Amino acid sequence: MKDIMRFDTVALDDAQSALVIIDQTRLPGAIEMLHLKTQKEIWDAIYLLQVRGAPAIGVAAGYGIYLAAKEIETSDYDTFLARFREAKDYLNSSRPTAVNLSWALNRMEQVVLANAERTVAEIKELLHAECEAIRDEDVAMCRAIGEYGLSLIKNGDGILTHCNAGQLATSKYGTALSPVHLGREKGMNFRVYTDETRPLLQGARLSAFEMVADGVDTTVICDNMASQVMKNGWVNAVFVGCDRVAANGDACNKIGTSGVAILAKHYGIPFYVLGPTSTIDMSIESGDEIVIEQRPAHEVTEMWYKQRMAPEGVKVYNPAFDVTDHELITGIITEEGIAYPPYTESLKAIFEKKKTR
Amino acid sequence: MKDIMRFDTVALDDAQSALVIIDQTRLPGAIEMLHLKTQKEIWDAIYLLQVRGAPAIGVAAGYGIYLAAKEIETSDYDTFLARFREAKDYLNSSRPTAVNLSWALNRMEQVVLANAERTVAEIKELLHAECEAIRDEDVAMCRAIGEYGLSLIKNGDGILTHCNAGQLATSKYGTALSPVHLGREKGMNFRVYTDETRPLLQGARLSAFEMVADGVDTTVICDNMASQVMKNGWVNAVFVGCDRVAANGDACNKIGTSGVAILAKHYGIPFYVLGPTSTIDMSIESGDEIVIEQRPAHEVTEMWYKQRMAPEGVKVYNPAFDVTDHELITGIITEEGIAYPPYTESLKAIFEKKKTR
Repeated sequence: MKDIMRFDTVALDDAQSALVIIDQTRLPGAIEMLHLKTQKEIWDAIYLLQVRGAPAIGVAAGYGIYLAAKEIETSDYDTFLARFREAKDYLNSSRPTAVNLSWALNRMEQVVLANAERTVAEIKELLHAECEAIRDEDVAMCRAIGEYGLSLIKNGDGILTHCNAGQLATSKYGTALSPVHLGREKGMNFRVYTDETRPLLQGARLSAFEMVADGVDTTVICDNMASQVMKNGWVNAVFVGCDRVAANGDACNKIGTSGVAILAKHYGIPFYVLGPTSTIDMSIESGDEIVIEQRPAHEVTEMWYKQRMAPEGVKVYNPAFDVTDHELITGIITEEGIAYPPYTESLKAIFEKKKTR
Repeated sequence: MKDIMRFDTVALDDAQSALVIIDQTRLPGAIEMLHLKTQKEIWDAIYLLQVRGAPAIGVAAGYGIYLAAKEIETSDYDTFLARFREAKDYLNSSRPTAVNLSWALNRMEQVVLANAERTVAEIKELLHAECEAIRDEDVAMCRAIGEYGLSLIKNGDGILTHCNAGQLATSKYGTALSPVHLGREKGMNFRVYTDETRPLLQGARLSAFEMVADGVDTTVICDNMASQVMKNGWVNAVFVGCDRVAANGDACNKIGTSGVAILAKHYGIPFYVLGPTSTIDMSIESGDEIVIEQRPAHEVTEMWYKQRMAPEGVKVYNPAFDVTDHELITGIITEEGIAYPPYTESLKAIFEKKKTR
């Protein structure tokens, strides 16, 4: 496993002729780097979740549309634009509800539209610069989150995490796991406990993988063991990601996060939510406004298993997310700094700081 | 599934020539009643966990040794006793650490020893009465727990449970699930939420099965969904079993129970521990004295699955039990009544009441 340490989740190869990703559907059983050259290959990789995680999908889309643009053999701008848009629509159809996918593709299109007076060769160069910028901004954002998070822990600390808000979901570092990866770069190490995160096991399959790959002392636990691990005194801080944060600090994240927060409060352990400011939605006052996606029963009763593990005739409740009440959250760590309670004020201040930069 | 409603976990067949059990290793995929006639068949059933749960094993052992005794063809007491003891030692070797197994076998042996003056035929009759008494006492004990538990809930209530402390672990009713089964007999119904209970899935496989078999409105959830289910307002009470209770009320039970108790306290939901007085160990002051069994990693990373679900090189922490602090427990429900805080006094009173009967 050592040779994939510091693997890139998403990158261009040296010849800039292929998108290179780590196939997340094969993890943790097999470590396979995919070299995707055709648009069909890239479309499939996004559709099949071989690359997943909102930031990682955005970066993959940027690289993907650049590779498509590079292959367009014309010097006529209008022809180029038309074929660029065909490629864009095609890639955009791979995961229609993924906001970062269309966001990255639209950003790349803006480069084409804003440079109609330039040659096609020049536009291709600008597109290359733009997709690398998308990646670099993602890395910088994750790195900033990591720096702020790292300021809260010390070498050797025990960190408990839930689901995967790690490098595999971004182009580098991740969000919740960024302090750990960044600490490793600085020669530190931590004891990381990854909740397996039923039903989809992102903690056991993905977080544990990227922690082990980075040489971190990693222990997988079943979700229901977090209480005992905390009681043992092994956890100094909980770091989790977020899918959406309300203006009052209520944080929507993978199902089970709210339970971990309640346990952390009971045991007096700080509980931090880590995510980019883009996940903070100041237009919603509280988490009550967030509609929770319900997922199919078979994920709980059949998926992964050799046979069905619950009786026929039983109901299954399978919410994908839950909302952690802001009163349970010690701090919200963004690329612009750490927000502390009261969040209605501190999150507003974060956005004001961001605007003035 | 209707025709196995009110199934017996352990029973003698009508001809008193076979031990009839529901094969728990096949649940919930297949419902298979095993008719065990030979001692080898009974030994295998206990060894292979086809019958499991301390009370159920005790009852099976009583029936099993009775069937062995019945087959001993001699009228000479000493020969009978010698062959009885051979059979006893054989059955006792099926699960050497199961206390109820040796307890039941010793109790049956006492019948033989206390009646040396009687004919072998008479002793066989007394043995039959004794093994039925073991079962009847188990049913009465579970029924009493159920009556006390039922007094705390009302028709239509939502009950959350963890692991399987149900009929499948006893000869009838169970402990934690006894109020639900008993309520069904009285024409009531409940909404039961069964934590799947990783890693061994006793909640999804066993509790859900026996609830559905009894016509209960049953919903399986992953362990990490309990917080959301409670937040939704769906749970009126939590009922869990126990493996050992200390004199101060600290309760050792399946891993994850302490987390459920912390969630219940957070959401203001009463949390009850149900079990026979035989699980209350007045010789230990608190749960700190209870050593937690650690189980193998493969249960978390590989068991049940089509393939390994965590990376090589990762550690696994897999405690079988945890201890729920007495301060989190609303009441401890026994066959002698309900103990409320402070438990150091109320549990003592329960034992004094038992002694005077």
